[in-house]
Amino acid sequence: MAKIIECIPNFSEGQDQAIIEGLVTVAKGVPGVTLLDYSSDASHNRSVFTLVGDVEGIQEAAFQLVKFASEKIDMTKHHGEHPRMGATDVVPFVPIKDVTVAECVEVSKNVAERINHELSIPIFLYEDSAQKPDRVNLARIRKGQFEGMTEKLKQPEWAPDYGEAKIHPTAGVTAVGARMPLVAFNVNLDTDNIDIANKIAKIVRGSSGGFKYCKGIGVMLEDRNIAQVSMNMVNYEGTPLYRVVETIRFEAKRYGVNIIGSEVIGLTPAKALIDSAEYYLQIEAFDYGKQVLENHLLN
Amino acid sequence: MAKIIECIPNFSEGQDQAIIEGLVTVAKGVPGVTLLDYSSDASHNRSVFTLVGDVEGIQEAAFQLVKFASEKIDMTKHHGEHPRMGATDVVPFVPIKDVTVAECVEVSKNVAERINHELSIPIFLYEDSAQKPDRVNLARIRKGQFEGMTEKLKQPEWAPDYGEAKIHPTAGVTAVGARMPLVAFNVNLDTDNIDIANKIAKIVRGSSGGFKYCKGIGVMLEDRNIAQVSMNMVNYEGTPLYRVVETIRFEAKRYGVNIIGSEVIGLTPAKALIDSAEYYLQIEAFDYGKQVLENHLLN
Repeated sequence: MAKIIECIPNFSEGQDQAIIEGLVTVAKGVPGVTLLDYSSDASHNRSVFTLVGDVEGIQEAAFQLVKFASEKIDMTKHHGEHPRMGATDVVPFVPIKDVTVAECVEVSKNVAERINHELSIPIFLYEDSAQKPDRVNLARIRKGQFEGMTEKLKQPEWAPDYGEAKIHPTAGVTAVGARMPLVAFNVNLDTDNIDIANKIAKIVRGSSGGFKYCKGIGVMLEDRNIAQVSMNMVNYEGTPLYRVVETIRFEAKRYGVNIIGSEVIGLTPAKALIDSAEYYLQIEAFDYGKQVLENHLLN
Repeated sequence: MAKIIECIPNFSEGQDQAIIEGLVTVAKGVPGVTLLDYSSDASHNRSVFTLVGDVEGIQEAAFQLVKFASEKIDMTKHHGEHPRMGATDVVPFVPIKDVTVAECVEVSKNVAERINHELSIPIFLYEDSAQKPDRVNLARIRKGQFEGMTEKLKQPEWAPDYGEAKIHPTAGVTAVGARMPLVAFNVNLDTDNIDIANKIAKIVRGSSGGFKYCKGIGVMLEDRNIAQVSMNMVNYEGTPLYRVVETIRFEAKRYGVNIIGSEVIGLTPAKALIDSAEYYLQIEAFDYGKQVLENHLLN
């Protein structure tokens, strides 16, 4: 069975259709790679591409996309609502099949080195590829954005992982890294009190003492007049979905509040849901790789 | 995305390695088809092959396997514990991806016609391909076994669906049909009283008034000294796994008995488990085809 890696590069262009279509053409032109999805947001002025491929193909595709973006996108003229620091802002690699996060870290380093070597764009390694604890979090790396990067890189603690302390004049700086697949998962409560959703989000998220691989905030769903615990599950093996659901359930009870539903936003690996089925159905000794039929069909 | 069909032919040979390996060679030689698994049981004197492939490939592979079996297996000399009526006893086709049961019924008819036309083996269509209600159930078709088929086929109500009322002298009779994927699913109880497992099995199985697509019996797990409700879920969309688990749970309570675990035996489609995750996690408006990442990788 072949190894499959996902790559979700974010580009600082969400308006110019010629450039976006150019990126699509580049992505589709690399053997061993499939472009699963791409979406652009004009007000963010940003596009997100989702590709999957084998180890060689995904590295080539990532590099060629970054190269094309560096030739077509001028950050000195970029405006958009979303924080950004480079023509290609961030390039995460995600293990999908028969591949570990550690292998994706290696892939991220290969691509980072090549981008810097051939295109002279300085690179920060982030998430599981980070070389220092304060580079795990993309928001910390990106703080100051494109306009602030010239000065930021001169600080010794913000010397890039690849390249000199000097931004690319038009393509800026890019973050490259490996991470587990992310599942965007929201739990809806039968209350219109957002304070309750906020309190529960604080309980389940890792940053305030909850589950290590859960990020969460309370949000109000205005159209339904209900409060929601909105989460990013950044490692569904380390923090399974059922565990936050059951925790939200017993914490909400304190307020006489119940769970009325949940939402998975966008894509999820099958295993993130099957792990929860295993828990609730109490399945003994289930072997995901061997017993799920579809795993024998992917190659 | 390509359509994927599974085929699980059962052959009346579980001892002669040369014949079994010959079947393996045939299966592996058909383009567009992958042999996922095969297993032989010497006391049953029977082998079960599991193949997946595209619509053309799976039909060709099924035919070539039946042809090889008809040339190598002599039913007049066959002995084994498992009921059987042909060198190839039964050939089910199962929809796996982007294909309906109705399309698998068409596939089964194509293969049935070709087997009869080229090999002169009479065919019964069974399960979802059955042309009469009393031919849905394989056990009813097979009753009398190979030795009784010569007389059985002479009865007007048991005229084959393809071919004359005359068995193939050495290859006997074969059943061909389409069905949903089957999930072998057992629920373990914290009691050593098999009567309770039997009573609950009777409640959940369709044949005695329970769920239409559930077959079940009570069995004793001697090594663990616990009783089990052992089930075949013959259509996990019609009767989801969580529904029988929750029913078993509330029926067992009457006896002060609890569920201590469950088992999935062998392969299961991912969707059979994800449907249950959706229920327990209360996921709203989940789109299995679009939101499960792996579904975009299969082609």
